[in-house]
Amino acid sequence: MMNAQRAFRQVPGALRASRLITVSHTRSARRLQSTVTSSNPTHFWSTSRVLLFTAFTGTLTYLYGINDASSHLKQPSPSGYTTTPVYAKKADLERAITELRQEFGEDAISTDDEVLRNHGYSEWSSVNIDVLPIAVAYPKSTEDVSRIAKACHKYKIPMVPYSGGSSLEANFSAPFGGISVDFAMMDRIIELRPDDMDVTLQPAVGWMALNEQIKDSGLFFPVDPGPTAMIGGMVGTSCSGTNAVRYGTMKEWVVNLTVVLADGTIIKTKRRPRKSAAGYNLTGLFVGSEGTLGLVTEITLKLAVIPQHTSVAVVNFPSIRAAAATAQSVIRTGIPVAAMEIMDDVQMNVVNRAGATKKKWKEVPTLFFKFAGTPAAVKEHIQQVKELSRAQKGGDFEFTADAEEQKALWSARKESLWSMLALRREGDEVWSTDVAVPLSRLADIIEVSKKEMDELGLFASALGHIGDGNFHESIMYQAKDPEERKKVEDCVTRMVDRALDMEGTCTGEHGIGIGKKASLVKELGQDTINVMKKLKASLDPLGIMNPGKIFDL
Amino acid sequence: MMNAQRAFRQVPGALRASRLITVSHTRSARRLQSTVTSSNPTHFWSTSRVLLFTAFTGTLTYLYGINDASSHLKQPSPSGYTTTPVYAKKADLERAITELRQEFGEDAISTDDEVLRNHGYSEWSSVNIDVLPIAVAYPKSTEDVSRIAKACHKYKIPMVPYSGGSSLEANFSAPFGGISVDFAMMDRIIELRPDDMDVTLQPAVGWMALNEQIKDSGLFFPVDPGPTAMIGGMVGTSCSGTNAVRYGTMKEWVVNLTVVLADGTIIKTKRRPRKSAAGYNLTGLFVGSEGTLGLVTEITLKLAVIPQHTSVAVVNFPSIRAAAATAQSVIRTGIPVAAMEIMDDVQMNVVNRAGATKKKWKEVPTLFFKFAGTPAAVKEHIQQVKELSRAQKGGDFEFTADAEEQKALWSARKESLWSMLALRREGDEVWSTDVAVPLSRLADIIEVSKKEMDELGLFASALGHIGDGNFHESIMYQAKDPEERKKVEDCVTRMVDRALDMEGTCTGEHGIGIGKKASLVKELGQDTINVMKKLKASLDPLGIMNPGKIFDL
Repeated sequence: MMNAQRAFRQVPGALRASRLITVSHTRSARRLQSTVTSSNPTHFWSTSRVLLFTAFTGTLTYLYGINDASSHLKQPSPSGYTTTPVYAKKADLERAITELRQEFGEDAISTDDEVLRNHGYSEWSSVNIDVLPIAVAYPKSTEDVSRIAKACHKYKIPMVPYSGGSSLEANFSAPFGGISVDFAMMDRIIELRPDDMDVTLQPAVGWMALNEQIKDSGLFFPVDPGPTAMIGGMVGTSCSGTNAVRYGTMKEWVVNLTVVLADGTIIKTKRRPRKSAAGYNLTGLFVGSEGTLGLVTEITLKLAVIPQHTSVAVVNFPSIRAAAATAQSVIRTGIPVAAMEIMDDVQMNVVNRAGATKKKWKEVPTLFFKFAGTPAAVKEHIQQVKELSRAQKGGDFEFTADAEEQKALWSARKESLWSMLALRREGDEVWSTDVAVPLSRLADIIEVSKKEMDELGLFASALGHIGDGNFHESIMYQAKDPEERKKVEDCVTRMVDRALDMEGTCTGEHGIGIGKKASLVKELGQDTINVMKKLKASLDPLGIMNPGKIFDL
Repeated sequence: MMNAQRAFRQVPGALRASRLITVSHTRSARRLQSTVTSSNPTHFWSTSRVLLFTAFTGTLTYLYGINDASSHLKQPSPSGYTTTPVYAKKADLERAITELRQEFGEDAISTDDEVLRNHGYSEWSSVNIDVLPIAVAYPKSTEDVSRIAKACHKYKIPMVPYSGGSSLEANFSAPFGGISVDFAMMDRIIELRPDDMDVTLQPAVGWMALNEQIKDSGLFFPVDPGPTAMIGGMVGTSCSGTNAVRYGTMKEWVVNLTVVLADGTIIKTKRRPRKSAAGYNLTGLFVGSEGTLGLVTEITLKLAVIPQHTSVAVVNFPSIRAAAATAQSVIRTGIPVAAMEIMDDVQMNVVNRAGATKKKWKEVPTLFFKFAGTPAAVKEHIQQVKELSRAQKGGDFEFTADAEEQKALWSARKESLWSMLALRREGDEVWSTDVAVPLSRLADIIEVSKKEMDELGLFASALGHIGDGNFHESIMYQAKDPEERKKVEDCVTRMVDRALDMEGTCTGEHGIGIGKKASLVKELGQDTINVMKKLKASLDPLGIMNPGKIFDL
């Protein structure tokens, strides 16, 4: 536990270094390539100092041992891997790229510096490392992905899936270089089946584009993370959004997946009934595995019927605790709100400054409600929520009856992180992260965490999908100021530890990626992590599927 | 495919043999013990003919190869196991039982013939084999289960979990003998947390007992399979029930699990937030794994708020298709019914003959609706369903306003299998099984399957959770009449094949057990089954966790 704790504390420190370097260096991807692909320990050590102090704090084991496809199998290991994967050397990487280009054409595999950077670095991620993929592949079909996987399997090259690129915990970064598999060319809706209320599509379909394209069917896909998220990545991180309180999260809405395994084998996890008890729930295992078990190339999603009537309400509260307490009582009373979001004074200020809505909002703790259903039901639910709000001194129960204004209001909420990024000064970074706790503890964690954020004296906001016990912090800081960065780091660490102390989780919907690996160990303990590692080792003995994510091999 | 098909066709034939033998023999558990535990091929063959022609049709590979804890790991195998597990010989079995009795006391391990029979045979299962466990263990705690697992791991003894014993596909039978782990002594509700809307309990708590004990909290657990089902088995088979159309299935309601792995390691799959994206969804993997990956010893479940108002309605239809079509339009319109069940004329006759309700019902195709929510919402939903029913010539829209009558009506539905069993003549067996298909195909499969059942000239009924595309058949036949048995067997086979042809599943909520192994291969293909096997091999290299279920090792 102590080690995990220490490791966790060190990670953000490492990121500071990373960020500084990212700013000060403009080393080419070529040089990064040699950094990440050498398997000569000495050379690796000499060229990888930066790497070590950035991505791998607490994971030095990565450096040792030689890899053999089956050697890890020879003695049973508590972690499934007895030796640490070592990946292709430069020569093999170049051979693989040449072979793939011969197979798919020059443009299908890019090694352009800017392209590599866009696939390895994210300005809104709480974590960035100073390593980039060595190439980006653009498959057009499941078969293409399978052929890419076969090549990577042959040469032991890491594969990192990429779709919308909006994840926040370095889920798509490439700590071991390797090939980023960008699904941009796989963005088709394959089949919409209104009578079955499902749709089959490719990974690079955005959830907003999907809903736009299918709206005439009277159906919609209810999982609503960040606006730029695509279904592939949404499957990878098991995301959710504002609709989760009513409709649940990603894993409840995926019917089946077509997956390309590490060796290029193509499997389908399930057929197409909405309900099944047929064997292991492979669909549920791949959802949230962040590409560490296989590459998802086709997804069948359940769809919901667009509610007959919706209404949005906004209520002000004297304190964040009063707002949280109201949310709790709404859930506990069983009022089926379609969505219920909490935003603090700072976040309301961001909405106003971003000018997303015609109206200017009071900059105080606020609950946003969405109601949906038959007209009478909606009316009834609003009445009940009004009463519960009043009991907590909630006031100004305002409606945005106008559909456009409703849309604007929710997009203001959904774009809160982007709105905040838009307010950055030169050199600012935003650390945005989430935790989830049992319902009864939400008011507690929000109140204490909000107080701590205010004490930072920084531009920091709290918001959350409060009906799910899911709470987000976004803190802006000067990347170049080590002390300021450290204050933010400690504040975030305390919030995560607080969530764990409350039997909560280190992430409600963002996933683990690199950013939360150490807290996952704290959360579940090594024995449970070892089960995850064994499962991965059984499907990916070479450790080439998005290595370095969720846990260290 | 052809082989799988042949194998599937053969299984029921095997069962006939099994059933006859089960009736005619009263061999003692001792002799069964030598049958199932010998590892001498010749002896095994000579004593196991019965076994072969019963449980293992199409799975003769079970007979060959010697086991070595890690040998299967030496060369990577497509299935995760390169050699077939071979289990403890008689001497080691006796040693293990002696050691366990010394540790837990005489009564904690039973080898009584009647007890063994009750743990290996089920009168309502569509499959029975002529093998029983060699002992039944009664652990009192997670630590007890871990110590039992350590002993079984040391001696390579199969472990088969047992709770309610109401499963229908031989999910708890013991084709390799071994020890049945009965959770009867682990039946406590450990903690109810009304403010978090969750509860932590042990496997042998029945879902009905749970709801009875927590009703004062205003909360309930909505998954409602057969009345005698217990939470442990419900986790194992990923069951559902009449409430699934509104509340979803088991996997949506399990927050976390405490699991004892094959080697006795105790893990917890998750902490206690209702929502999490923290690492692999282990909870979702263990739910539905039928005890083949580990033994679940503690479960935390989400709870729902008891609806303010409920109402039950019954509607008659001129044909089963008209009823199914109405159900489809109710779902497609997005009316949030709390439950929607279809019962055919025969099933209504069963309800009447069982005398479960005061009222006598018309013996025609019927839809049962449950409505729940605020009073106005319920009124609105009823009105909408009335209109949709009329469009399909549905008549006699009757309400059972009386709470007692509502309860009686639903229990009549839920006890339909038991009611049918109660009507058996001497030597009758009931074959009850389920499939699920995409929503748009439900009317088709019910209509054709119902017609085929009627043509059998047997006492056969169709019913289902029609809002989930989940459909059940129950057919009564004379076990001693080979021709009759064959007719039933073919009829069931055609229904399952029909469901698969419609992109459906061979089981919507009963699980695979032994009964549906061959159809699972047809449904998912060998590559997907191999992924399941690899996952199992990574956690259970000795193959001692409920072997012979879901797939053959």
